[in-house]
Amino acid sequence: MYKQPFVSFIGSGNLAWHLAPALDNAGFSVREVYSRDSKNAKALVGKLYEGEEKKDLDFTDSKSTIFVIAVADDAIESVVQEIVLPGNAVLVHTSGSQPLSVLDYATTENSGVFYPLQTFSKNKKVDFKDIPIFVESESKEVEKLLKEMAKSISKKVIKIDSRQRKALHVAAVFASNFTNHMLSISNDLLKEYKLDSELLKPLIAETITKALAIGPDDAQTGPARRGDLELLDNHYAFLEENEEVAEIYKLVSQHILDRYHS
Amino acid sequence: MYKQPFVSFIGSGNLAWHLAPALDNAGFSVREVYSRDSKNAKALVGKLYEGEEKKDLDFTDSKSTIFVIAVADDAIESVVQEIVLPGNAVLVHTSGSQPLSVLDYATTENSGVFYPLQTFSKNKKVDFKDIPIFVESESKEVEKLLKEMAKSISKKVIKIDSRQRKALHVAAVFASNFTNHMLSISNDLLKEYKLDSELLKPLIAETITKALAIGPDDAQTGPARRGDLELLDNHYAFLEENEEVAEIYKLVSQHILDRYHS
Repeated sequence: MYKQPFVSFIGSGNLAWHLAPALDNAGFSVREVYSRDSKNAKALVGKLYEGEEKKDLDFTDSKSTIFVIAVADDAIESVVQEIVLPGNAVLVHTSGSQPLSVLDYATTENSGVFYPLQTFSKNKKVDFKDIPIFVESESKEVEKLLKEMAKSISKKVIKIDSRQRKALHVAAVFASNFTNHMLSISNDLLKEYKLDSELLKPLIAETITKALAIGPDDAQTGPARRGDLELLDNHYAFLEENEEVAEIYKLVSQHILDRYHS
Repeated sequence: MYKQPFVSFIGSGNLAWHLAPALDNAGFSVREVYSRDSKNAKALVGKLYEGEEKKDLDFTDSKSTIFVIAVADDAIESVVQEIVLPGNAVLVHTSGSQPLSVLDYATTENSGVFYPLQTFSKNKKVDFKDIPIFVESESKEVEKLLKEMAKSISKKVIKIDSRQRKALHVAAVFASNFTNHMLSISNDLLKEYKLDSELLKPLIAETITKALAIGPDDAQTGPARRGDLELLDNHYAFLEENEEVAEIYKLVSQHILDRYHS
């Protein structure tokens, strides 16, 4: 009746919230969701066809084959220590930064990594089709299964090793979390001077469109790019009441200066 | 024959390159282009209907009414000192960060600011329609003329004062130049680990789409947002060979931590 193996999720955070229903829809039926936060587990179960909440980490009697750990990085180890798996279980984690070896102490040798590279927030829909998924395993068989599961939801499936995955994750922090934080700082400034945050939206959209089209190095503009030291000092002084923001201004500007003017 | 006053440009950099032809097209006929770089001036003239290169800053016999200074911020002062204007000339600068008063020493009292907020690169087309243009003048008449000129190319024309304009410009540096630089750092990391820079594009696009849709504060994710100190240390150590990048990682992460966890 079911062509694909059943899946169980450990975790109900931002990633699980989007990944579990996507896999469920694609035929990798998600049957169980365990979460320390039972309310979240129930909410996620509500998005599945035949899933139910699992109250503990003893999966001895589970009908699932694939167990997906989708918890915060610092909680993976304790899940690995506690979890009890059925025979032939495949255990994967979804972290960008944790090595495959973090699963070494689990009661299965069939372990792997299944890392979708995207920023997930519960209240923002995502389409997995264009999200690259990075898989890793020491077992050819597990690798094949993970690739199959990845291909069921994404057009872009890539095998990489743990070292590359960490570089990718750090790069993603700069490209996503830090760019987003620059936008937060920018919004704070607009608010402080009673300016509508809408005003910067065309600039932000064009900045990214341009960077993606011609590459960020050619796309760079602004005072540091031009080497306008007087203006940099002027801006730094303007920000002096907000010491941390001024420090970020100085450090990033210096780094841009070094890149283009040395 | 011509409804709108003639315009002369001083400067032929990224902004002039896009703004002069846009105004020219909209009926504010750009007749003269002066630039220290004669080759650039000639190239820009080539994009105009009836413009010609001006070889010096003596505009005594010019038929233009509006003189647009579109040079680097640190070159505005020397232009103001050298320029000779005809009677009734309106002199404007296009800088985000220079006060209106930088034009005080010019030989006209009709001065103003005409600041289109966008990132301009010569090899990337822009559509002025959605670019907010900020105008400022102490003269109601000049303000009216600048608003008219701005409205000829943009749907969004706003009067602000010099203090707000500076805040806007600093905010724009964070939102545009610094976000772009985060993408440069990210690309460097991918290159170093032999990963295709295409891989991060869906993440980058989604990051910005999400930030624009739900606001950057709600959109933030990642290790600092989660308060995952162990992972932050781990990433910092990973970057240790590149001291400046590691410093940026630390400072921005600390600022995100402070924002969400204090």
